[in-house]
Amino acid sequence: MYIAKVVGMVVATRKEEDFVGKKLLIVQGINEKEELLGLPEVAVDAVGAGTGEVVLITKGSAARSVFGKPSSAIDAAIVGIIDSLEVNK
Amino acid sequence: MYIAKVVGMVVATRKEEDFVGKKLLIVQGINEKEELLGLPEVAVDAVGAGTGEVVLITKGSAARSVFGKPSSAIDAAIVGIIDSLEVNK
Amino acid sequence: MYIAKVVGMVVATRKEEDFVGKKLLIVQGINEKEELLGLPEVAVDAVGAGTGEVVLITKGSAARSVFGKPSSAIDAAIVGIIDSLEVNK
Amino acid sequence: MYIAKVVGMVVATRKEEDFVGKKLLIVQGINEKEELLGLPEVAVDAVGAGTGEVVLITKGSAARSVFGKPSSAIDAAIVGIIDSLEVNK
Amino acid sequence: MYIAKVVGMVVATRKEEDFVGKKLLIVQGINEKEELLGLPEVAVDAVGAGTGEVVLITKGSAARSVFGKPSSAIDAAIVGIIDSLEVNK
Repeated sequence: MYIAKVVGMVVATRKEEDFVGKKLLIVQGINEKEELLGLPEVAVDAVGAGTGEVVLITKGSAARSVFGKPSSAIDAAIVGIIDSLEVNK
Repeated sequence: MYIAKVVGMVVATRKEEDFVGKKLLIVQGINEKEELLGLPEVAVDAVGAGTGEVVLITKGSAARSVFGKPSSAIDAAIVGIIDSLEVNK
Repeated sequence: MYIAKVVGMVVATRKEEDFVGKKLLIVQGINEKEELLGLPEVAVDAVGAGTGEVVLITKGSAARSVFGKPSSAIDAAIVGIIDSLEVNK
Repeated sequence: MYIAKVVGMVVATRKEEDFVGKKLLIVQGINEKEELLGLPEVAVDAVGAGTGEVVLITKGSAARSVFGKPSSAIDAAIVGIIDSLEVNK
Repeated sequence: MYIAKVVGMVVATRKEEDFVGKKLLIVQGINEKEELLGLPEVAVDAVGAGTGEVVLITKGSAARSVFGKPSSAIDAAIVGIIDSLEVNK
């Protein structure tokens, strides 16, 4: 999993049925200083996250498992809202 | 998933049967300013996308699920056409 | 798998059930000089690791297998504590 | 999938049985100007490709599906020979 | 798959049962001039490889298939020893 910030959302009228009724949020990895890292991704929200929140992202078949349907078009999901980070490098 | 722009297409006469009759589009990740990011990929179109459109890409077994055949040579698919992006970094 | 250092931990009250009661550690890849490499990730601890320890990370469905539940939201796990590294480049 | 050029081949006498009798080609991603991108990989040929040809690469379990054996040591395959690319960035 | 050099090994007393009795080798991708590329990884040896040898690495569920146990903590394996490389870029 990785730590990300929700930086936006996507509106798509024409899409696979698996996405209907789900929030498609734009997320980007961050470090402990909340600096953005890597490339943005789109993750389906499973925990009621919103823009600006620091969240936990899971990918691949792990992301599908969250929505109770092993075969679906989903390959990334928001699976936690992070309250705090403790980092000692 | 990630946000990409359709930048072209591929013509391949000799190919695996799973690709026959499908559109193989060249896509490249973009940010909210539509600047191209990362490396180009080839995705199978599932939603009727065309060159220049901003789309949603899914990868791995999620991409296969879209075509109703769990075992196939497909590892990336276009699963949505994006109408708009809202980004607040 | 890759070699990482445990650099911190994550506290998340709202999260998928698969993470309840598990330690979510922040890990980052290192080389043989223990210099940090790549981007940080979050891995579920399976071996009793703590901050500052050098560990072995596995990803994807391999990470899920460790917790005896093939379908879960986990996509990375700490599966070993490294006693020593021998490197000859 | 991604577009690659076949840049070489690998000879390995001692190898997993799944590779016996198969061509192990070295491929590297290219852009529309045929400039090499990213890192080289080794893919098993499924379509009769040769050095210098522009091909389509699939990865992960998609690559295994091509050889009709769901469980094998193969994680990348050449699944098409590209006749032409049309790119409008 | 990718071409790598075995650059070391890992000793880990506390580890998942799937690794017991197996050699955990540190590998790093190389090009045709044997220059090291990308980040080091840890792969389980399936072919009797040793330090300094040029090997073939497979990842994900392909790596697990090699050890005859579909569900395990292994996500990378050494599946061939490379005798020679032929490269024409």
